[in-house]
Amino acid sequence: MSDLRLVVVGAGGRMGRMLMRAVTEASGVTLSAALERPGAPVLGEDAGLLAGVGALGVSITDDVDAAFAGADGVLDFTVPKATVAFAQAAARAGITHVIGTTGLSDEDNALIDDAARQTVIVRSGNMSLGVNLLAALVRRAASTLDMEFDIEIVEMHHKHKVDAPSGTALLLGEAAAAGRGIYLKDHAQKVRDGHTGPRRAGDIGFATLRGGSVVGDHTVIFAGAGERIELSHKAEDRGIFARGAVRAALWGRGRAPGLYSMADVLGIRDI
Amino acid sequence: MSDLRLVVVGAGGRMGRMLMRAVTEASGVTLSAALERPGAPVLGEDAGLLAGVGALGVSITDDVDAAFAGADGVLDFTVPKATVAFAQAAARAGITHVIGTTGLSDEDNALIDDAARQTVIVRSGNMSLGVNLLAALVRRAASTLDMEFDIEIVEMHHKHKVDAPSGTALLLGEAAAAGRGIYLKDHAQKVRDGHTGPRRAGDIGFATLRGGSVVGDHTVIFAGAGERIELSHKAEDRGIFARGAVRAALWGRGRAPGLYSMADVLGIRDI
Amino acid sequence: MSDLRLVVVGAGGRMGRMLMRAVTEASGVTLSAALERPGAPVLGEDAGLLAGVGALGVSITDDVDAAFAGADGVLDFTVPKATVAFAQAAARAGITHVIGTTGLSDEDNALIDDAARQTVIVRSGNMSLGVNLLAALVRRAASTLDMEFDIEIVEMHHKHKVDAPSGTALLLGEAAAAGRGIYLKDHAQKVRDGHTGPRRAGDIGFATLRGGSVVGDHTVIFAGAGERIELSHKAEDRGIFARGAVRAALWGRGRAPGLYSMADVLGIRDI
Amino acid sequence: MSDLRLVVVGAGGRMGRMLMRAVTEASGVTLSAALERPGAPVLGEDAGLLAGVGALGVSITDDVDAAFAGADGVLDFTVPKATVAFAQAAARAGITHVIGTTGLSDEDNALIDDAARQTVIVRSGNMSLGVNLLAALVRRAASTLDMEFDIEIVEMHHKHKVDAPSGTALLLGEAAAAGRGIYLKDHAQKVRDGHTGPRRAGDIGFATLRGGSVVGDHTVIFAGAGERIELSHKAEDRGIFARGAVRAALWGRGRAPGLYSMADVLGIRDI
Repeated sequence: MSDLRLVVVGAGGRMGRMLMRAVTEASGVTLSAALERPGAPVLGEDAGLLAGVGALGVSITDDVDAAFAGADGVLDFTVPKATVAFAQAAARAGITHVIGTTGLSDEDNALIDDAARQTVIVRSGNMSLGVNLLAALVRRAASTLDMEFDIEIVEMHHKHKVDAPSGTALLLGEAAAAGRGIYLKDHAQKVRDGHTGPRRAGDIGFATLRGGSVVGDHTVIFAGAGERIELSHKAEDRGIFARGAVRAALWGRGRAPGLYSMADVLGIRDI
Repeated sequence: MSDLRLVVVGAGGRMGRMLMRAVTEASGVTLSAALERPGAPVLGEDAGLLAGVGALGVSITDDVDAAFAGADGVLDFTVPKATVAFAQAAARAGITHVIGTTGLSDEDNALIDDAARQTVIVRSGNMSLGVNLLAALVRRAASTLDMEFDIEIVEMHHKHKVDAPSGTALLLGEAAAAGRGIYLKDHAQKVRDGHTGPRRAGDIGFATLRGGSVVGDHTVIFAGAGERIELSHKAEDRGIFARGAVRAALWGRGRAPGLYSMADVLGIRDI
Repeated sequence: MSDLRLVVVGAGGRMGRMLMRAVTEASGVTLSAALERPGAPVLGEDAGLLAGVGALGVSITDDVDAAFAGADGVLDFTVPKATVAFAQAAARAGITHVIGTTGLSDEDNALIDDAARQTVIVRSGNMSLGVNLLAALVRRAASTLDMEFDIEIVEMHHKHKVDAPSGTALLLGEAAAAGRGIYLKDHAQKVRDGHTGPRRAGDIGFATLRGGSVVGDHTVIFAGAGERIELSHKAEDRGIFARGAVRAALWGRGRAPGLYSMADVLGIRDI
Repeated sequence: MSDLRLVVVGAGGRMGRMLMRAVTEASGVTLSAALERPGAPVLGEDAGLLAGVGALGVSITDDVDAAFAGADGVLDFTVPKATVAFAQAAARAGITHVIGTTGLSDEDNALIDDAARQTVIVRSGNMSLGVNLLAALVRRAASTLDMEFDIEIVEMHHKHKVDAPSGTALLLGEAAAAGRGIYLKDHAQKVRDGHTGPRRAGDIGFATLRGGSVVGDHTVIFAGAGERIELSHKAEDRGIFARGAVRAALWGRGRAPGLYSMADVLGIRDI
């Protein structure tokens, strides 16, 4: 089978360069084009030099339609407004659109849904294989174990992170709550300080650690009488999101048009 | 619903006493009888005093049929020969037989299969809820992640343990191999010392720690490019096997006759 | 050298029974007497049977002076008022007094100081060897690493614990602060929820996990640029406090009168 | 105080570029020169562009004496022959020589010892602050705890590593053995497979994990009756060695000539 030809959009940004590196390093895929907005200073530069992987003979361009016409898929971690336009262009070109963009509004998502009637779109707030698999395992563990097992979630990130708990910790909490058939907002316990009294049955506890340069560690603990199950994810570098996007594009080849998630890509929607 | 009436066999042994404690502490179950072999020195003693939970008014007896006649289920961590006889008596009495006995021969198992045509039998080499759930999660993770993720299993037990890796570590290795559709024996890597060369793709590695009084910790690591998933079980006390047996007995109430496993009890056979 | 003869006071309580078990199991020590208050229902019972270690031929008594006269040391996890009286009796008898009693007032401690002019007293709020060693290592690590390393402390205890962070977590935080030459109260960060902003340089963070039957796990993390040091203690059972008390008594043999801590017993006062 | 002027030797290699990045990012130091061997293709290039930190106005040169004349120290992770020559040049120039080079022979070390009579030399096989501190804490813990605590060392590295246990694991084992006053070679237990029998008292066990892209995790476990102490180091990136070298150079300012180690830099020689 010939290599899947992929376009990276937002190629001049930090995530764009990571995506180009991931495409270069993966097998079965080729970088066919690299896009930036009209007027961007990197237009015309070699994409590979920009990504730090050596010259690739692919120049940064701003011609979306030409780029999409010669491609099988597009990897997109940009901003909502651009992403909606890319979804429409991908639908016209009939190529797979992998969306890692965050902050999409309901209106943005409605337009993406429209585009997904014509082409394959994979959209996820976290493209890491590991985090998506972990969430599925957490949901299943929570549905299997009864309320005798207390659920706690602890995460650690670098000292610059400004919010707590992390979005991924909350995503894991939602997975645990879904497994139990409850709403996280009714059972999340995010603060413990001083005289707390005994743990409230059914709570899902969160604990937050900050320090150093930690990329992101998450552990979900199921603590029962005399035993614990702990399910963890440890991110070593941010390239895992780019690699997940490449895997999503490979998975999309030959699928029926529709809107998919990383759970579909991993085949774990119904664990 | 009235309490499930349970018999503990081998009541005078260490595991028997643990089972009696577990029955006393769980809700929905009552200790209706406690059996020992004819001539055992504890015959006639109060089962609760023997188990260290205070007098229960149940005397240790050697009359199997009388005990089974007044019961809904029997918890059995004894020896193969006794277990086969208990299976036949349970089948006659129509009560659930929970078997945690190890070392059963093919012949023993055939006789147990026969008994399971007439009554509910739950048999498992490890009755812990946590270990059984962990094995199912490991199998599923291994089937989801491709060979880019290396699988490693590390366990720690107390200094008195005489074999390595632990039976549970091997059980987890079998689960990982089953998820990948390979045979563990072809891919297990149990020794690393000196110049090993790079890791062989597809290996399942084992590492063994021994020390102190550790009851049993197991971790299965899936290590990929830039990320790790770690799935762990930590046993704090051996009562988890007794509590799992009680849960199996509760699950067996009203089931059709047949031979079941802890995966059935937990509803995770098909994760 | 002949065995050290030890008295356990408060012998009928949960900790007293643990102390008697620890004395029975350790080498180099013998239980010479077991005391309870006048009128206690267990007076006259065999200490070994009470402790669950088989008959020892030592009856529970309320005669303090007779007990102390035939002993080399006393193990005491009782209440402040009793402990002060035992200190004075130990001083009169010239035997080592190991004090694990908590909640001592300044006045109580002054009286204990007086007694320590005449005999060896070892007093500690936490008699575990491991926790005391960990605290010393934490202090030393904090004094070695500069402020580029962020300090975080995470602990987990069973679901019944009613306060957070644990006393031991705070003790470890004090050790870290002492190593840095700062006051913990000025730098402790116990709550993180919502928009927190980046981590404040110099903070010592605390995170609390609760669930199941966990006896007590503590980890102190030093997170720097590109590396972390983690120093942990995991308690498996509460017998570690009793075993630490026995070690303290053995250490006290032949010392000059004075008030000592577990740091002295372990020889880590000046790490 | 003015910035410390540092020379990086072997500037064109992977470690050289890391050292230049570390110098650029640290405060209190400036890159005054970057050296490569005569004829190296990068001669004349801008050091900052080579290191990926933007132009610095420092060109790669092969003139050792000119570079050393204008510097306060030199960072050197090259090869033994070059390192010996640099030591002699540093001694002539009177500047601090930080040596992270491995594979030095006894003869090389003798020549370095000679140079250290005239200038400050800091030499270490592992320049990470964390690993050096961990080794000191392990030695102290091993000397404090008696033989009742079993020592186990577990490490994990990426799948490409070809030897086991890692050099750092062995270094930690040596530290533990030194703390106990024994020889590691007499007590190291590196293989456990099949019927091992109970753990031999006094052994120091090693367990090796390999997989994915793990930079290097090490844990030393002290497992006693009812409690464990675990001391860990987790490396996130290889820049920790470069940052340690910068710290060593800063520490060397104004010292008396002599041969020092990272234990001296950290002030932990006598923990």
